[in-house]
Amino acid sequence: MNIILFEPKEIDYPLPLADERAGHILNVLERRVGDSFDAGIINGAKGKGMLKEIRENELVIDFQLNEETASPFPVDLVVGLSRPQTNRKILQEATSLGVRSIHFITTERGEPSYASSRLWTTGEWRRHLISGAAQAFSTRLPAVAIGQSLLETIEKLETASLRIALDNYEATSSLESALVDTQSFTLCIGSERGWTGGERKVLKDSGFAMAHLGQRPLRTETAVVSGVSIILSRSVWK
Amino acid sequence: MNIILFEPKEIDYPLPLADERAGHILNVLERRVGDSFDAGIINGAKGKGMLKEIRENELVIDFQLNEETASPFPVDLVVGLSRPQTNRKILQEATSLGVRSIHFITTERGEPSYASSRLWTTGEWRRHLISGAAQAFSTRLPAVAIGQSLLETIEKLETASLRIALDNYEATSSLESALVDTQSFTLCIGSERGWTGGERKVLKDSGFAMAHLGQRPLRTETAVVSGVSIILSRSVWK
Repeated sequence: MNIILFEPKEIDYPLPLADERAGHILNVLERRVGDSFDAGIINGAKGKGMLKEIRENELVIDFQLNEETASPFPVDLVVGLSRPQTNRKILQEATSLGVRSIHFITTERGEPSYASSRLWTTGEWRRHLISGAAQAFSTRLPAVAIGQSLLETIEKLETASLRIALDNYEATSSLESALVDTQSFTLCIGSERGWTGGERKVLKDSGFAMAHLGQRPLRTETAVVSGVSIILSRSVWK
Repeated sequence: MNIILFEPKEIDYPLPLADERAGHILNVLERRVGDSFDAGIINGAKGKGMLKEIRENELVIDFQLNEETASPFPVDLVVGLSRPQTNRKILQEATSLGVRSIHFITTERGEPSYASSRLWTTGEWRRHLISGAAQAFSTRLPAVAIGQSLLETIEKLETASLRIALDNYEATSSLESALVDTQSFTLCIGSERGWTGGERKVLKDSGFAMAHLGQRPLRTETAVVSGVSIILSRSVWK
């Protein structure tokens, strides 16, 4: 955690000592009364939190949050629903890299049960976004959509984006070679078992270029970090 | 597991049913007597294993391993020792990407205890290399060195490599901009708490360019996949 994030309504109340952020402030950051730490409001401003009082069951914090935070990068990530452990990493890492949206889609070769995992039904997924943003010293969370089909998802995405899908079998170039200077990007990564013929047709009909990350099959979460990094490296990490 | 890997001497004996590879062959790949699967010898040839007989406690496999396997890519990764959970991911992901060596160094801001974790003392680390190679459909493991200092490590590395260190604070360019066409690369990534002044001096005196992956601080394992991917994307993923 490089910044401690709070929901907008949380900053009006003391922070319970049982909250893991209270433990982080006292035990990891070792802050005492009068000390400050980096703080922010989820999807809002950032600045400092000052530890004003340590009560028996809660911390009283005085917030000074005046800094605007940068928007996420213009990258929309579409990725096949996978095992919860894989999706946790994707939520955390894609957020820390700074994509503006993540769409976890159902795919023809994915397990339908993935969409009903506790990760999605309990709201746990949002904690991984907050963790990724806090790692990146940002307050901004990407928009997340869960369980729609490839076609439904593509139809809602910005048509002016450069559209690239990763495909180990039908790639016509490397991701690097498929990139052109443009304003925004959509990167589509399939389920672990790959795309079906029907899905490939949807992608091609929707203007996606099929690209690869070398010949070695990568885990989905590795391909996400790899693909998003190559796009950001060529467009915004100047 | 996209290929099942065996130590050289294992292929002369039946595979115990208690071995997790036996479970994978029978239950995940659903192979029966007469069926084949992709197999390889660690750091050796690959080809097919044919399930010849299922005994009470073991599988008898007939190996046909005649295909040469490609060497890893000419990338040496130097990374600060971190928490075991972080290092497990780095071992797996850097191997799946195909680096030729990984040097886990002690750093001035790293915990000295990291080098004595069970990950390193029990030989568990090698299992993560095998898992990474099997994911990438390769038999080749990178060379791994553990617990040496930055200076000791640099002195042993190829001097003709393009030397780049990631540094959020003293970077003079992005990693992308620091890359030039060359034969081999050394990528140096610090501990989670960053480099000290002394370490920065060692890096600069040894010809390392200081580069960044944008302004957002990334977890070490994310920076490894990101940095290695950008290097491979520019050099070998054609």
